[in-house]
Amino acid sequence: MEIEIVRPEEIEKRSFAIISEELKAQGMTLPEDQEAVTKRCIHTSADFDYARNLTFSEGAVEKAKEAIRHGASIVTDTQMARSGINKRVLEQYGGQVYCFMSDTDVAEEAKRAGTTRAVASMEKACALEEDLIFAIGNAPTALIRLYELIREGRIAPKLVIGAPVGFVNVVQSKEQILTLKDTPYIVARGRKGGSNIAACICNALLYQC
Amino acid sequence: MEIEIVRPEEIEKRSFAIISEELKAQGMTLPEDQEAVTKRCIHTSADFDYARNLTFSEGAVEKAKEAIRHGASIVTDTQMARSGINKRVLEQYGGQVYCFMSDTDVAEEAKRAGTTRAVASMEKACALEEDLIFAIGNAPTALIRLYELIREGRIAPKLVIGAPVGFVNVVQSKEQILTLKDTPYIVARGRKGGSNIAACICNALLYQC
Repeated sequence: MEIEIVRPEEIEKRSFAIISEELKAQGMTLPEDQEAVTKRCIHTSADFDYARNLTFSEGAVEKAKEAIRHGASIVTDTQMARSGINKRVLEQYGGQVYCFMSDTDVAEEAKRAGTTRAVASMEKACALEEDLIFAIGNAPTALIRLYELIREGRIAPKLVIGAPVGFVNVVQSKEQILTLKDTPYIVARGRKGGSNIAACICNALLYQC
Repeated sequence: MEIEIVRPEEIEKRSFAIISEELKAQGMTLPEDQEAVTKRCIHTSADFDYARNLTFSEGAVEKAKEAIRHGASIVTDTQMARSGINKRVLEQYGGQVYCFMSDTDVAEEAKRAGTTRAVASMEKACALEEDLIFAIGNAPTALIRLYELIREGRIAPKLVIGAPVGFVNVVQSKEQILTLKDTPYIVARGRKGGSNIAACICNALLYQC
């Protein structure tokens, strides 16, 4: 297999063209409003499973874009996702990215309560007085606590990105989010996900704004 | 599916136990020295493909551990991987993590030479006068340039982690690394990989030191 000569600025375009071709060859058609998000997840992971496992509440993409345009911030449960989200674009609309996972008060509260830092960081997010998108890419415990906080009426996210990854309560935590009636969500059903997926869903939304 | 009650400090252990069970059920036995790295990649991605696509040069893990213990630093091509690598553990042995992707001189050099920032950041790494592990989790262009620099004798990495992800020259860039005779490598063959995989391979090595 020879190295293909592609100009730097053409690489991403070429990648998306290949993804489109292969989806077509597999007989898969994506809903138009979901296409950019789903293709970017495949681009980030080279895993076509995301064409099947990504689940969107009705109008989720449009609602998220509107929230971003109105200055919503993003809360994430991983420093890697924070690092990967395009903060330059988000800041243009007035939002910022929060990750409380390394905060001393979060570590102390988690220890005191015998819970995870991810849970404690969701509690901390409740105190933010602004519109919020939650991008959960690691801890199912964060997503479970977020679900409870929504049910208790303590927080009303503009969007929940449910993409924790792994083997313990990951599937369950995502299925719970799908039962929410008034909360827009984008959920990667099943075990797969990760900080890269959480970040790239945010970026796919940002690049459409 | 009910939420499983698992104490926070037990979640990772439980996850690795599930991974071990499922590998066994699939009839897969991993070489003992590769086990920790491969299982951590599955843990990070929930993708059992890594049990098949990870390819290790002989003694790569042992050589990498020795390099880390002797203070080797890590160069990566993504800020997300830099963010995900456990710098606290690396620093205990005297190493640090470099990522030149956002450096102004790298951007300028890439523009001047009509290449990618990833290529320019590999060139920049040549000037580092210390033992280096390269963790490539995004750009095949970085891995291709690294291969050339090794062949030209301009750099002699203690380990190359080849885990770029995607559709343009990704497969090819990894296959080239497998042809190197004297360079230890851990390569995720095929299209899959990513900053999360590059970071978690580093962490799997660090946690064994």
